[in-house]
Amino acid sequence: MDLASIGGFVLGMGLILWGILFGGNALVLYWDAPSLVIVVGGSFAGMLAMSPISRITALGKLFGVFFNMQVFNKEEIISQLVAFSESARKEGLLSLDDALNDVEDDFLRGGMRLVVDGSDPDVIKSVLYSDLDKIESRHQKGIDFFGNWGTLGPAFGMIGTLIGLIGMMANLEDISSVGKNMGVALITTFYGSILANLFLIPIQKKLEDKHQDEMLVKEIMVEGILSIQAGDNPRILEQKLYTFLAPDERPAGGGGEE
Amino acid sequence: MDLASIGGFVLGMGLILWGILFGGNALVLYWDAPSLVIVVGGSFAGMLAMSPISRITALGKLFGVFFNMQVFNKEEIISQLVAFSESARKEGLLSLDDALNDVEDDFLRGGMRLVVDGSDPDVIKSVLYSDLDKIESRHQKGIDFFGNWGTLGPAFGMIGTLIGLIGMMANLEDISSVGKNMGVALITTFYGSILANLFLIPIQKKLEDKHQDEMLVKEIMVEGILSIQAGDNPRILEQKLYTFLAPDERPAGGGGEE
Amino acid sequence: MDLASIGGFVLGMGLILWGILFGGNALVLYWDAPSLVIVVGGSFAGMLAMSPISRITALGKLFGVFFNMQVFNKEEIISQLVAFSESARKEGLLSLDDALNDVEDDFLRGGMRLVVDGSDPDVIKSVLYSDLDKIESRHQKGIDFFGNWGTLGPAFGMIGTLIGLIGMMANLEDISSVGKNMGVALITTFYGSILANLFLIPIQKKLEDKHQDEMLVKEIMVEGILSIQAGDNPRILEQKLYTFLAPDERPAGGGGEE
Amino acid sequence: MDLASIGGFVLGMGLILWGILFGGNALVLYWDAPSLVIVVGGSFAGMLAMSPISRITALGKLFGVFFNMQVFNKEEIISQLVAFSESARKEGLLSLDDALNDVEDDFLRGGMRLVVDGSDPDVIKSVLYSDLDKIESRHQKGIDFFGNWGTLGPAFGMIGTLIGLIGMMANLEDISSVGKNMGVALITTFYGSILANLFLIPIQKKLEDKHQDEMLVKEIMVEGILSIQAGDNPRILEQKLYTFLAPDERPAGGGGEE
Amino acid sequence: MDLASIGGFVLGMGLILWGILFGGNALVLYWDAPSLVIVVGGSFAGMLAMSPISRITALGKLFGVFFNMQVFNKEEIISQLVAFSESARKEGLLSLDDALNDVEDDFLRGGMRLVVDGSDPDVIKSVLYSDLDKIESRHQKGIDFFGNWGTLGPAFGMIGTLIGLIGMMANLEDISSVGKNMGVALITTFYGSILANLFLIPIQKKLEDKHQDEMLVKEIMVEGILSIQAGDNPRILEQKLYTFLAPDERPAGGGGEE
Repeated sequence: MDLASIGGFVLGMGLILWGILFGGNALVLYWDAPSLVIVVGGSFAGMLAMSPISRITALGKLFGVFFNMQVFNKEEIISQLVAFSESARKEGLLSLDDALNDVEDDFLRGGMRLVVDGSDPDVIKSVLYSDLDKIESRHQKGIDFFGNWGTLGPAFGMIGTLIGLIGMMANLEDISSVGKNMGVALITTFYGSILANLFLIPIQKKLEDKHQDEMLVKEIMVEGILSIQAGDNPRILEQKLYTFLAPDERPAGGGGEE
Repeated sequence: MDLASIGGFVLGMGLILWGILFGGNALVLYWDAPSLVIVVGGSFAGMLAMSPISRITALGKLFGVFFNMQVFNKEEIISQLVAFSESARKEGLLSLDDALNDVEDDFLRGGMRLVVDGSDPDVIKSVLYSDLDKIESRHQKGIDFFGNWGTLGPAFGMIGTLIGLIGMMANLEDISSVGKNMGVALITTFYGSILANLFLIPIQKKLEDKHQDEMLVKEIMVEGILSIQAGDNPRILEQKLYTFLAPDERPAGGGGEE
Repeated sequence: MDLASIGGFVLGMGLILWGILFGGNALVLYWDAPSLVIVVGGSFAGMLAMSPISRITALGKLFGVFFNMQVFNKEEIISQLVAFSESARKEGLLSLDDALNDVEDDFLRGGMRLVVDGSDPDVIKSVLYSDLDKIESRHQKGIDFFGNWGTLGPAFGMIGTLIGLIGMMANLEDISSVGKNMGVALITTFYGSILANLFLIPIQKKLEDKHQDEMLVKEIMVEGILSIQAGDNPRILEQKLYTFLAPDERPAGGGGEE
Repeated sequence: MDLASIGGFVLGMGLILWGILFGGNALVLYWDAPSLVIVVGGSFAGMLAMSPISRITALGKLFGVFFNMQVFNKEEIISQLVAFSESARKEGLLSLDDALNDVEDDFLRGGMRLVVDGSDPDVIKSVLYSDLDKIESRHQKGIDFFGNWGTLGPAFGMIGTLIGLIGMMANLEDISSVGKNMGVALITTFYGSILANLFLIPIQKKLEDKHQDEMLVKEIMVEGILSIQAGDNPRILEQKLYTFLAPDERPAGGGGEE
Repeated sequence: MDLASIGGFVLGMGLILWGILFGGNALVLYWDAPSLVIVVGGSFAGMLAMSPISRITALGKLFGVFFNMQVFNKEEIISQLVAFSESARKEGLLSLDDALNDVEDDFLRGGMRLVVDGSDPDVIKSVLYSDLDKIESRHQKGIDFFGNWGTLGPAFGMIGTLIGLIGMMANLEDISSVGKNMGVALITTFYGSILANLFLIPIQKKLEDKHQDEMLVKEIMVEGILSIQAGDNPRILEQKLYTFLAPDERPAGGGGEE
């Protein structure tokens, strides 16, 4: 589980609840199930209308990515690529054949397989970059899903508030009910704002961040695969790949600074 | 019919109606024909003022695209291109002449025709990319139409509300009418918000999505046509084209992962 | 006259007037000359402050472009270019000398003149692309003028409303005047909103659309001029140029589909 | 002095004053020195916090650029470049040595000096483009300064209004003071809106416009300097440079149209 | 300490306090600890949910960068690079070996080390540009952190205000408490607005500015390192590097003007 995100959600909701109680208000004033249904359901209905079915069914997977604590161990991937490079120089590309079966990452294994199979360098390059490109655009659609939802959330919050206000205006004479109706009307805006700012926008931004991290790892792999194919010096490969990491992620004094 | 979009519209409208009734308000309070005319008609008038006639008359076609359930069968297109590639390698380009008549897609048939007719590779490339480019910009105008409409919708909602408010302010003394007038004034904002967030923006986003899907298919075709023209190995062509698909759309263990 | 735009303006204003009258309000409530002066004049003052004099004096020309119904007949231009190409192949470039005097379009005539005069191909290319580039940036400034004005319109609407509100707040005791003053205050926002959403933004978008259409025509001309200079086959030139048109604008089964 | 901008400011302020007086309100209601201090001072404090000292001290220079009426005489610059080109062809590059001392523009003189000194063409190109690039980014920071200020202005207007509203809410019982306090509260929003929409945003846009005009002139110079270095034909140089001008700025029938 | 930023914060807060006191309001009306906790804590919870842990723990470092007065002495760096260039031309690249230990900047030292070690020019170029690229994207994430926070601040300000309003609406009968509750409700919006406009957005913009300044310095270094590797003339190198500075930062009459 991604503890920072869980922590952020819990802290945010906790502060909101604390703010309500500390202000001396009853918690029940802030609970209105129909409002929740209109905001969450209505904005989701908009997403349903704008998305292909396949994106809706893939939502579970996206939440999985979001909550996944797993971080790519870039140093290990670099070590592995350097090791491949060394054994390719010493014993030839075919010597990598067995080692590939132990590679967990599909992208790396697939790319290395092309090298070992002796594919044309141009084909390898074109296949890898085309693959990167398509991964980028698939990920972007998942990220945009939450971005768009984060826009629809407050919009349906306002739609709910208008429902309440229009109803209230018809009963203005009954002054005693105005405050209560108005309060209920504001709850959908309240829910829409929390939905977007505490949940949907952070999910969007975090998915984007994880996407960029994954793309960086994939770029390291592409650089490594093409270097191995070209028979570059393993030391130079290592030096090149370490520039992909932040200075404090590098094992020893690298060539750059923050 | 595109069931997800229909489902989204129905679910969204249903939730709004349910929210109204559940809140104990009469549905009739939320119905005001002149408001609907001002919001839908006024924003459409703005679209009329900003668009060439041809785009207005093409609106029906755009709605058709939106509701069209038809999805490109990318795997089938790839198989077809690979089959063309094989028969071109074995029996020469001219052997494709008959098969082309069965190709449904105009873009693919036109491009293959150029190859079979022995056009210069540079000409083929330039014709295909120029075609892609123009398709892109034509589609973009249709997508932007709904995006712009989605901006004008709430704007005319506010114009309608201002009409109501200004009228109401002139009759403030008659307290009993204030609430009712105010309610009617808010209805245009309500309609404008629903029009944009439940209908126009989702239509815009879905058209954009379908556009990107179609462009991906067209890129597969271009890649395939140019490879056949160049006489590339059918196996390598197949491998290249499969990188255009998401991993779970590929028939067997491809070279990438999500 | 561009009937769609005129129609849009008339329809939009008509619907607003109808909405006012249908709601049972006197039209006179919505007319306030000073408000109109503040919104239109104030936002124009902002445009004056941000624009070079030359752009202000060119406004009439921009309105002319906006209302101009004239559409480029792309098919005719293509035919002309193909005819030039044929006669250049058969009778040499110099044979075009006389025909050029009948070419109405300055850009096409100027570019063909360079070809006929035997200028260096690189010079021709550089002159034509530099010209296109400058036309693009000049047009963009006209388009941005209306875009910026469309932003200032509602801003000065709000400034006018604040003038009204501040004045009203000083006389709150006189309850009978509050409603009337408030109504007047809202009128500037009303005018600013109509000015931007029914007039300025549609003008901006339509100028942009016409600009793109003109650039497409100019790109056709550049492609044609360079092909004629290079002595390309007229059939291939025709095929290339038709990809610039939408499928339904093409005379017979072209190579692409929508 | 740039009369259009001065005229815009005067017209805008005049219309606002006229709107106030015409509405029958006392001008004194709209004057509140502390509000002015909060809006202008507060937004400037934000700019101080976000800018390096050097940008603050360069503000005077930016205002100077803004009010500077001086327009580049592009035709004269082109004539000069063509004259240089002719004399370089006839009498050699060294013949330009004396003429350079009369060139007022530092950029042009510096670039021509490199040519006369016989620097390597690649070095000249790299020095000129690097210079252009840095000028662009330095100008952009000045332009952004006013853009950011234009955003902070209304924000501090709202902060001032909130100060007023919070104070007023504590004294709601004293109904007679509510209107007055509310009026004062609205004044900061009023000032913030005028500051941004009549002054800061127009200054930003005008600086951007002048920047683009200057860059165009510098591009003409670069094109000219490189052509002279390469020994191009002066006639062709003239033709190329005139495409940088709008058709109506060109002396005789050029190769393009608006 | 960066005095301009400190000065901006102090001036801004001072003006706000002065505005409060000058308006005759008690300072205590504007202090509400729970509101501060909701705005700062809630928006920080959102940032926690959207950021990887590593970015949160690096916040202290970012604040350090923000307050750091240290400015890169570009002229000194250029002198150093020119001195390296001269001694490399006279005594060979190896002569730089000792001098490198005195270079403080990691990026410069690492890059020069590659040159002295005789690495392949293409490798050096690729390592340096890859390093620049990664530094750029790491910095951008820090800058975006404050940008995103600046958006969440006012959003949580509004959430806090809604908490207050909903609570108030339930007690509308008690008129005497309405004003006070309303005032407290507005305080969160007040805090959110100050947090974003006086602190977070200026911090974001200043970090961006410092980032650009650092990248400029790094570009000077890359240009210098590659020139030294290529054995370019030190005079030409100096001339090239000075174009990276603004005219008034250059020691003597350089080749450009502002």
